[in-house]
Amino acid sequence: MSDEKISLQSAICPMPLSHTDQIVIGHGSGGRMTHDLIQSVFAKQFSNPALDQNNDAASLNIPSLSQSCQRIAVSTDCHIVSPLFFPGGDIGRLAVCGTVNDVSMLGAKPHYLTAGFILEEGFAISDLIKIVASMKQAADEAVVQIVAGDTKVVEKGKADGLFITTTGVGFIPDGREIGGEYAQDGDQIMVSGTLGDHGIAVLAARGDLGFETTIQSDVAPLNHLIDLLLSAAPHTHVLRDPTRGGLATTLNEIAVQSQVGILLQEQELPVRDEVRAACNILGFDPLYVANEGKVIAIVPAAEAEEALSAMRSHPYGKDARIIGKVNSTPAGRVLLKTTIGATRVLDMLSGSMLPRIC
Amino acid sequence: MSDEKISLQSAICPMPLSHTDQIVIGHGSGGRMTHDLIQSVFAKQFSNPALDQNNDAASLNIPSLSQSCQRIAVSTDCHIVSPLFFPGGDIGRLAVCGTVNDVSMLGAKPHYLTAGFILEEGFAISDLIKIVASMKQAADEAVVQIVAGDTKVVEKGKADGLFITTTGVGFIPDGREIGGEYAQDGDQIMVSGTLGDHGIAVLAARGDLGFETTIQSDVAPLNHLIDLLLSAAPHTHVLRDPTRGGLATTLNEIAVQSQVGILLQEQELPVRDEVRAACNILGFDPLYVANEGKVIAIVPAAEAEEALSAMRSHPYGKDARIIGKVNSTPAGRVLLKTTIGATRVLDMLSGSMLPRIC
Repeated sequence: MSDEKISLQSAICPMPLSHTDQIVIGHGSGGRMTHDLIQSVFAKQFSNPALDQNNDAASLNIPSLSQSCQRIAVSTDCHIVSPLFFPGGDIGRLAVCGTVNDVSMLGAKPHYLTAGFILEEGFAISDLIKIVASMKQAADEAVVQIVAGDTKVVEKGKADGLFITTTGVGFIPDGREIGGEYAQDGDQIMVSGTLGDHGIAVLAARGDLGFETTIQSDVAPLNHLIDLLLSAAPHTHVLRDPTRGGLATTLNEIAVQSQVGILLQEQELPVRDEVRAACNILGFDPLYVANEGKVIAIVPAAEAEEALSAMRSHPYGKDARIIGKVNSTPAGRVLLKTTIGATRVLDMLSGSMLPRIC
Repeated sequence: MSDEKISLQSAICPMPLSHTDQIVIGHGSGGRMTHDLIQSVFAKQFSNPALDQNNDAASLNIPSLSQSCQRIAVSTDCHIVSPLFFPGGDIGRLAVCGTVNDVSMLGAKPHYLTAGFILEEGFAISDLIKIVASMKQAADEAVVQIVAGDTKVVEKGKADGLFITTTGVGFIPDGREIGGEYAQDGDQIMVSGTLGDHGIAVLAARGDLGFETTIQSDVAPLNHLIDLLLSAAPHTHVLRDPTRGGLATTLNEIAVQSQVGILLQEQELPVRDEVRAACNILGFDPLYVANEGKVIAIVPAAEAEEALSAMRSHPYGKDARIIGKVNSTPAGRVLLKTTIGATRVLDMLSGSMLPRIC
């Protein structure tokens, strides 16, 4: 080791971040430039006692809930949406909401998020600042804290601007048993609102539609809506958000997990006219298009009306509908009763309809 | 919505994974191909009751530890190492060990990991299988479970083969207070083994050295070593793994957090001859080169000998050394007493010495 090398390193004064406008490889070094980026972009927005510990991991209290809690819920999602900004949201809002929602689908209360950023060299720091601010806004809305993070940089051409991986930790009140395996014969199936908005909004933002549209992504944190729902319908069996693969794929997963039949009523399925029109032109089926702010709830018939009212009392659930029911047969299958009275099988999505929508 | 579209989708029989040898966009669709990939690659290796729940989040028991526990430790890391395979390890082992180690640095017991995979279209499935098997092996060695995951696919040229983001959850026994802010005047500083092995091994794997070397990465899970250490030295103040930025950057972080001075003895710093030789030729300082299987422990003098013996009793700590001590001044600075008796300042890494080593 030579003194000169170190003295040289000490003498290099890193440029203040305000003087650079793009991500450079040095921002991923783990040294001074990484610290500067973290302080001036991430810590500025996300600052909280857990994150500000600046240790290798965050030390987090297990909260005292109104009920006791012996289980945590953990979920992770990589976000690669293209483009990064789209009507109704951006990759930052998506990354926070997607993980908040996944944790909430066990009936858990999401508390803590981590966020890992893979940045491409040359990415505009002004865009990063916008995205981080959007994450902060979504986290505040959901009332969760971003408690740990990581930032890596790859060379130009080795990524696509920015990927964000979020992991969420929530706490499951004792006695709560919600999951895809609990659907039962006679349960009512409801969805919190219109289908396909997110996928079509992202497609529109890519300019792939070939026509103008006003469709906005539905990306939103659903934990408060789910709190209301579970207060009204405490015996809810299943919660699931129909993201990639859409409603049809998600219901197929549940039908298999619970070994039940699912029967949907086509005339009850809420789809915006603009989304239906876009799907017709493009040859898509809105039942397979991703949503990012919708929840499917499968609820005992005795609590279905209360559940529906509770969802409709929240802005993100105002278009909630009962869309079908659970039968004992055909086990593992989803059937659709069409508007003309025919019944057909809705299968899981095959192949890839809309890549990079989340 | 049209029946034909769905019937067509139902009729497309996805190719069994064994008949494809590369990742295609459909593997990220969230539909049947994603399920096939998950079942045949990920679930096959990682299967455990938590992962096999197949819900949006994993429901995990808060374990009964020997001591009671009211805090969790959470950490996340994005892994972008290039190349994916290097002497002594691969991105899979790195992703598991890096996160196990970060969680352990609070004195927490790591239990659960999540893993998010961003795959580039065209990536060889045989390589993915190798990497996933390596993750499983590292997780088994550390005795942690991979409980949740996500898989996304981007078009060819929009990523670099594979990125893996891991998040770890551990449990902190009550009363344990370990962190970068707790170093105190008089503490002894030790490191569990030789410095710079990982960074130089990755560089060698890139063919950037211009000469042959037998240096292997030190990538390893340190949680068992740390268990031994904390049994022997229960009042340990700081644990930190010197990854990106190396020993010098990590000690600078600690000196600032604790507002203490750190004095290192150059002749005590363990560096392999091959690593020193490679660094001399390349103009690197091994004190700034990343390690992935080393821990810095800062321990009260009264427990230092016990701590050192405990580390040396574990295979990953056999080369452990006391390398310096903590002083009250100069606050926030790291000094090196050189072999010729001079004292110089060791600053934090500036710029980027070795990109994409983790």
